[in-house]
Amino acid sequence: MSYDPENIFAKILRGDLPCHKVYEDDETFVFLDIMPRSDGHMLVIPKTPARNMLDASPAQLAACLATVQKMSHVALRAFDAQGITLQQFNEDAGGQEVYHLHFHVLPRYEGVSPRPPGQMADQDLLKTHADKMRAALDAG
Amino acid sequence: MSYDPENIFAKILRGDLPCHKVYEDDETFVFLDIMPRSDGHMLVIPKTPARNMLDASPAQLAACLATVQKMSHVALRAFDAQGITLQQFNEDAGGQEVYHLHFHVLPRYEGVSPRPPGQMADQDLLKTHADKMRAALDAG
Repeated sequence: MSYDPENIFAKILRGDLPCHKVYEDDETFVFLDIMPRSDGHMLVIPKTPARNMLDASPAQLAACLATVQKMSHVALRAFDAQGITLQQFNEDAGGQEVYHLHFHVLPRYEGVSPRPPGQMADQDLLKTHADKMRAALDAG
Repeated sequence: MSYDPENIFAKILRGDLPCHKVYEDDETFVFLDIMPRSDGHMLVIPKTPARNMLDASPAQLAACLATVQKMSHVALRAFDAQGITLQQFNEDAGGQEVYHLHFHVLPRYEGVSPRPPGQMADQDLLKTHADKMRAALDAG
């Protein structure tokens, strides 16, 4: 198991691919999933290479979880969500599709099931959601 | 949002309820889900109170993730699994049922979908699985 620096999240981190960014700090980067299973569905990734949770360092895992927590609270406020579902997939059998460690943070709404995977969202809607989340972040 | 010390995982930690324990260290405790969605489905919890990820301390989250990683590798070996799916639910809308922070660690097998939730496992089978995991842990 190795790290391929040409995976799409590495390209996003390098700025070689666009994304709907919502937050970054020294260690982590957060952007919207383009196939959101719920409104506000984010991906939290470390800025340094890790294939997945299995080879990540304790520092990478701790930094990601701190950002997951911070951004979960932001999403609850931004979208008036009532819960958060966290998912993280490792290796093909575990559901992983992009081989850079990422945590899926799904804001959840009473009575609303997650949408099926694989449905591309409208880019304008994603922009609106990213703007909303950054505004909630700035408002503290 | 508060912590109810009468939740069933708190009772398991106090020894007031039985469980199929697979591991513990100073900060975390690991036991089998009695409604496993895959063979070896474990729950990793902190020994100290936290309602869920939203109110957990950075130290609790870091300790849980370190144990999630350690026990994921043990499960891969013990069950010859090929992947790991990690899930964590927060609040009712987020899918949470027991209000003590817990991470679901699902060993995954090529071509095998997780079983539907809510199916109670045979206790003898769970005991066999816990024994297998402890043996893999001891074998390092």
